Amino acid sequence: MALKKVAVIMGSDSDFPVVSAAVKRLNSFNIPVEVHVMSAHRTPAAAAEFSSSAKENGFGVILAAAGKAAHLAGVLAAHTTLPVIGIPVKSSTLDGLDALLATVQMPSGIPVATVAIDGADNAAILAAQILAVHDDGLASQLAEMKRGMAEGVAKKDADIQAKVREL
Amino acid sequence: MALKKVAVIMGSDSDFPVVSAAVKRLNSFNIPVEVHVMSAHRTPAAAAEFSSSAKENGFGVILAAAGKAAHLAGVLAAHTTLPVIGIPVKSSTLDGLDALLATVQMPSGIPVATVAIDGADNAAILAAQILAVHDDGLASQLAEMKRGMAEGVAKKDADIQAKVREL
Amino acid sequence: MALKKVAVIMGSDSDFPVVSAAVKRLNSFNIPVEVHVMSAHRTPAAAAEFSSSAKENGFGVILAAAGKAAHLAGVLAAHTTLPVIGIPVKSSTLDGLDALLATVQMPSGIPVATVAIDGADNAAILAAQILAVHDDGLASQLAEMKRGMAEGVAKKDADIQAKVREL
Amino acid sequence: MALKKVAVIMGSDSDFPVVSAAVKRLNSFNIPVEVHVMSAHRTPAAAAEFSSSAKENGFGVILAAAGKAAHLAGVLAAHTTLPVIGIPVKSSTLDGLDALLATVQMPSGIPVATVAIDGADNAAILAAQILAVHDDGLASQLAEMKRGMAEGVAKKDADIQAKVREL
Amino acid sequence: MALKKVAVIMGSDSDFPVVSAAVKRLNSFNIPVEVHVMSAHRTPAAAAEFSSSAKENGFGVILAAAGKAAHLAGVLAAHTTLPVIGIPVKSSTLDGLDALLATVQMPSGIPVATVAIDGADNAAILAAQILAVHDDGLASQLAEMKRGMAEGVAKKDADIQAKVREL
Amino acid sequence: MALKKVAVIMGSDSDFPVVSAAVKRLNSFNIPVEVHVMSAHRTPAAAAEFSSSAKENGFGVILAAAGKAAHLAGVLAAHTTLPVIGIPVKSSTLDGLDALLATVQMPSGIPVATVAIDGADNAAILAAQILAVHDDGLASQLAEMKRGMAEGVAKKDADIQAKVREL
Amino acid sequence: MALKKVAVIMGSDSDFPVVSAAVKRLNSFNIPVEVHVMSAHRTPAAAAEFSSSAKENGFGVILAAAGKAAHLAGVLAAHTTLPVIGIPVKSSTLDGLDALLATVQMPSGIPVATVAIDGADNAAILAAQILAVHDDGLASQLAEMKRGMAEGVAKKDADIQAKVREL
Amino acid sequence: MALKKVAVIMGSDSDFPVVSAAVKRLNSFNIPVEVHVMSAHRTPAAAAEFSSSAKENGFGVILAAAGKAAHLAGVLAAHTTLPVIGIPVKSSTLDGLDALLATVQMPSGIPVATVAIDGADNAAILAAQILAVHDDGLASQLAEMKRGMAEGVAKKDADIQAKVREL
Repeated sequence: MALKKVAVIMGSDSDFPVVSAAVKRLNSFNIPVEVHVMSAHRTPAAAAEFSSSAKENGFGVILAAAGKAAHLAGVLAAHTTLPVIGIPVKSSTLDGLDALLATVQMPSGIPVATVAIDGADNAAILAAQILAVHDDGLASQLAEMKRGMAEGVAKKDADIQAKVREL
Repeated sequence: MALKKVAVIMGSDSDFPVVSAAVKRLNSFNIPVEVHVMSAHRTPAAAAEFSSSAKENGFGVILAAAGKAAHLAGVLAAHTTLPVIGIPVKSSTLDGLDALLATVQMPSGIPVATVAIDGADNAAILAAQILAVHDDGLASQLAEMKRGMAEGVAKKDADIQAKVREL
Repeated sequence: MALKKVAVIMGSDSDFPVVSAAVKRLNSFNIPVEVHVMSAHRTPAAAAEFSSSAKENGFGVILAAAGKAAHLAGVLAAHTTLPVIGIPVKSSTLDGLDALLATVQMPSGIPVATVAIDGADNAAILAAQILAVHDDGLASQLAEMKRGMAEGVAKKDADIQAKVREL
Repeated sequence: MALKKVAVIMGSDSDFPVVSAAVKRLNSFNIPVEVHVMSAHRTPAAAAEFSSSAKENGFGVILAAAGKAAHLAGVLAAHTTLPVIGIPVKSSTLDGLDALLATVQMPSGIPVATVAIDGADNAAILAAQILAVHDDGLASQLAEMKRGMAEGVAKKDADIQAKVREL
Repeated sequence: MALKKVAVIMGSDSDFPVVSAAVKRLNSFNIPVEVHVMSAHRTPAAAAEFSSSAKENGFGVILAAAGKAAHLAGVLAAHTTLPVIGIPVKSSTLDGLDALLATVQMPSGIPVATVAIDGADNAAILAAQILAVHDDGLASQLAEMKRGMAEGVAKKDADIQAKVREL
Repeated sequence: MALKKVAVIMGSDSDFPVVSAAVKRLNSFNIPVEVHVMSAHRTPAAAAEFSSSAKENGFGVILAAAGKAAHLAGVLAAHTTLPVIGIPVKSSTLDGLDALLATVQMPSGIPVATVAIDGADNAAILAAQILAVHDDGLASQLAEMKRGMAEGVAKKDADIQAKVREL
Repeated sequence: MALKKVAVIMGSDSDFPVVSAAVKRLNSFNIPVEVHVMSAHRTPAAAAEFSSSAKENGFGVILAAAGKAAHLAGVLAAHTTLPVIGIPVKSSTLDGLDALLATVQMPSGIPVATVAIDGADNAAILAAQILAVHDDGLASQLAEMKRGMAEGVAKKDADIQAKVREL
Repeated sequence: MALKKVAVIMGSDSDFPVVSAAVKRLNSFNIPVEVHVMSAHRTPAAAAEFSSSAKENGFGVILAAAGKAAHLAGVLAAHTTLPVIGIPVKSSTLDGLDALLATVQMPSGIPVATVAIDGADNAAILAAQILAVHDDGLASQLAEMKRGMAEGVAKKDADIQAKVREL
C-alpha cells in the first residue's frame, strides 16, 4: 500500500524557515509531501477547496502553520475529516501565545492536533506516526528514529563529562 | 437614505445571552438587524456565503461573537469588504483571553474591529457609529445616548453620597 | 480490517467527568476503547509498560488526560511510536494554562497531539480521524457527524429567530 | 460626495515607525489624512478638543496609536460619536499585552475598535472599510486590494515550490 | 495645620463595595473625604475639571478606582500635580489583570501610584502616609495602626495553636 | 538521632485551610512540627528572629505559605541557611500566579524551594524527603507512602472500569 | 521648611541604569537624594534598619527598585510609615511581570505605591508630587514640568508633519 | 560522615550554559557532583533507572534542568524518595513560563523543589542547604557565603556613591 501524501500548508511564505523542518523530516521518511502557501484570510476559497478535496486527492494528513490569530489549521479542519496538525508560529508580539491559543482552543466537533510553538519537526513526526498506524515499515522507521535519539542523548552525556571537568 | 442592516452572527446559540445585548442596543437605534447562528468550523460554507453576499444584500456592518479559538469574525472578514466587528466571548477556561487573541491578532490585510471580552453592547454602539458616519439622524441619537450616560453618572454621583454617609 | 483499539488514560479518577465525553464519542463510532487510570508520577512503571506494549496489544491511538504539570501524555509518548493525543485538564488554579503548556510544549522528537483544555470530545474525534485515514467506513461516519453538526447549527439558526423577536 | 478625512493620532512620535504604515495605506486609497502627535496624559485638553470637534471638522474616522497603559484611543472615543480605531503599540516590556488590554477592554458605552498589536496597516484598512460603507468607489478599491492579496498569496505558493525542492 | 482632603473617585457605582474599604479607613484616621462617581469615558469633562481644581479646592491626594481598561486614575493624573493613587478593580473577565496593567503602566511624566487589585484599604493607608509626611499626628496614628496589626498577628499566632492540636 | 523539627509558617490565619494539609502529612510521618502565623510585612521582626534562630532551635526545614505578593518564604530564607520551602497560596485575584512568581523567582544567592500553588501536602512531603536524606527510617516511610500511592492508583484503575461500562 | 530627603534604594547595582533616571529627575527638582544598594534578601538587616530610621533621619519618601521576586519595596514598607514607591525592574525572563506582581500585590495594611515596569522617572515624579503636597515651590516646579511636557508634545506634533509628507 | 553526592541532570546539552553555574557552585562547596544529559522523553528508561538507584548509589539530592514542557524533574521525582530540585530553563518561546509551570505544578504526592527560571546557582545552594541539615561544616560554609554576599552588597553600596555623583 503506497503511503498517503502529507500536505504542508503555511499561512505566509515568511513561515517557511519554521516550516522547512517539517518538510525535511517528512522527506527523511520518504513520505510524499506537497507544500503550499495558502491563507485562511487572503485565499479562503483556495484553502477550503484544497481541504475539501484533500482526502480524495490522496492526502492522509494535513499540516498547517500560522502565526498571530492562527486560523489556518482550524479552517482546513472545518472542510475535511482528515486529521489536521496545527503548528503555532511565533511572531513579533506575544511570543507565540496568540497563535497557540488560536490553534489549540478549537470548539467541540472540529479538533486540531496542536504541537508546540514553532514545533514543525514534531508536526512531521506526528504525521508519520499517524500514517504508521497502518504502515509497519514507517512504524519501523519511527522506532529507529527513537533509538537514534536515545543514542544521541547517550553520546551527549558522554561528551558533557569533558566540559564538566573544564569548569 | 435608508439605514443599512447590521448582521449579528454568533458561533453558537450558547452565546445568545451575551449577544442579546447587541441586538437590544441596535433595536433601540431602530437599526434593522438580522441575527444568525453560524459557525466558522461547523458551517463554514454558510458563513462564507453569507459574508460574500452581505454587502449586496444590504448589510453595512457585520458583528460576530465567538469563544475559545474564535475564528468566526476573521472568517467573515475574509469574505467581505464590509467592516466586521468581533466580540470575544468568555468560555469555561482561560477567562476569555483565548477568544480575545484569536479575534484581535488578525494578520495584515484582514482587520477585525475587536471590542472587549463579552462586549456585545459596545459592538452594537460601534456599528451604530460606523453607520452614523453618513447618517446625521443616527449621529444625533448617539450624541443623545452619550448625554444620557453622562447624566446617569451624575445621578449616581448624587446617589452615592447617601451610601457614603452610612459607612 | 478490524479497527484498532483506542486507549483512554487519565492521570486521576477525578478527571473522569471530563474524560467520559471521549469514551462516549468513541463508543458512538463503535471504536473499541480501553480506559485506565495511570499516573506519570505515581505509577510511572505501569504507564511506561502500557505504552511500550500498546502497539503490539492492538492499540492504534492513545488518549491521555491530565491536569496541572500534565506529564502523562508526554510520558506515554516517550515509550511508543503510536500517536498520543493530550487533553489538558483544568484544575483549581491557573485555569488550565499549566496543563496546556505542559502538554503541548513538547521538545523536538516526541510530539503530543494536543487538543483544547478539557477538550475530551475533540480528542476522541481526532482519534477517529487518525484511524479513519485507512478505514473508509469510519471516514464515512465522520463525514456523517460533520453533516449532522452543520444541520444542528442550521436548526439553531432557525430557532434563534424566535428568541430574537422576544427581545 | 467627497471622502471624509481620517485622523491618525499617535501618543508619542516614537510610535511613528509603527503608525506610518497606516498613513501609507490611507494615502494609497487617496483618503485625506491628518496626522498628529497628541497625548492622553501630556496634552489631554488638546486631545479632548480635537476629538470633540473632529466630526464637524470633516473627519469620519479617528485612528489612535499608543503603548503601555494606552489610554489615547479611549480618551478620544470619550469625546466623539465617530468610530475610533485603537492600535496597541508594543513597548519595551510585556510584549504589547498592556497596550492591548488598555485599548480593547473599554467599559460599556464607549467602544474602541481595536486591531492587532502594532497593526497600523489593518487600522487603515478598517478605516477605509468604514468610509466605504457609503462610498462605492472606495469599496471597489478595497475589493481590488483583496484580489491583489489573493494573487500575491498564489504567487508565493508558486515561488515556494522551488524553495521546497532545494531542501 | 488642618489635614488636606482626600478625594475618592470611582468609575462606576458598582465599584462601591470595593471602594468603601478606603472610605472607612480614611474615616478611621479622621481624614476628610469626598467621594464621587466620575467616569473617564462617560463624564470626561467632569473628571478633568475636578482634577484640575482639586489642589486649590483643598485636596491633598486623589484615589481612583476603576476596572477593565481602567483609565480613570490616568485621566485624573493628567490634570493635576497631586499624587493620584490607582485602585485596579477586578471585573468579570481576566481576573483584574486588565485593570492592573491599564492603571500601572503609565508613560513617563504622569505617574499613578498603583496598589493591588481591589486594594482599596491599602490605597487609603497610602493616602494617609502621604499626608503624614508633614503631619506628625497622622504619622503617630499610622505607627499605632502598624503596632495593632503586629499585635493582631501575634494574637492569631496564639489562636492557631489550638486549631493545630485539633488536626 | 532525633528528627529535626519542621516549622510551618503562614502569613495569615486565613491560609490555614490550605496549610493544614502540610501539618497533617508531617504528623503522619511523626515529624515534630511547630506552626506559626507570622507576616513578612506586619511582623517582620518576629519573622526575622524566628528564622535567624531556627537552626539552633532544632529546626531542619521551614515551610512558608503566603498569597499575593508572597514575600514570607523569601524573608525567612534571607535569615537562615536552612532550606525554606515556599507554598504560594491562591487568593481572590490572578489565580495564584502572583504568589507563585513572588515565591519562586528569587534572586541568586537566596533560594526558595517552591511547590505548586496551594501545594501544602507536597511541601510537607518535600520536607520529609529533605530530613530523610540522613534518616533511613523516614526514607522507608516515604518509600512506603509511594507504594501506597501506586496501589491507590491501581485500585482506582480497577474501579473506573465499572463507571466506564455505565456510560 | 526644608525639603525632606528622598531615599533611592536598589536591590542590585545592576539596576542602576534603570534607577539613574530617578536620581536625575530628583536632582532636577533640587530634592536631596540619598542612593543605596540594599537587598531584601542579602542584607535584610541593613534594609530593615535603614527603613526603620528613615523618618527620623529626615527622609520623606523611599523609592525601591528591584527585579524578579521583587521584595525590596515591600520589606522597606514593612518597617516605616513613610510612603514607599516600588519600581519593578525587568530582568532576563518573564518581561517584568514577576517584578510587577511581587511589588504591587501587597497584602492589606502595607501598601507599596507601584509605578510601571522600569518606570524610575515616574517614581521620582511621584515622590516630588508627594513632597509637593505641602511645598508650594515644588508644586510650581511640577506644574512647570507639566507645561513643558505639553509644549514638547506640541513641538513634536509640528515636527511630525514634515515626516508625514515624506512618506 | 562523607557528603552525599549531588546529581545534576539536564534534558539537553544545550542547557549546559545555564546548568554550569550549578556545577561551579557545588564545586565551590566541595560537594561531589555527577553530571548527566538525560531526557524524560528521549531516554526515559535511563532516567528512570538513574533515579531509582540514585539513593543507593550515594546521591543525596538530584538537580534537574529542562525547558519547554519540562518533565525531567517530575519524572526523576517519580522514581525516588530523594529531594529533586527543578530548574526551569527559558527557551525560544514563552519566556520560560512553560518550563516553570511544567516543573512546579506537580500533583499531590510527588513534589519538585522548584527554583527561578534559569536559577541554576540557587538550585545548587538549595542542594547544599539540604545536605547541610546534617552537616555542620557545610552549614558553616553556607553561613560564610551569606556573609560574603552581604559584604558584597555593602561594597556595591559604597561604589554606587561615585556613580551617583557623576549623574
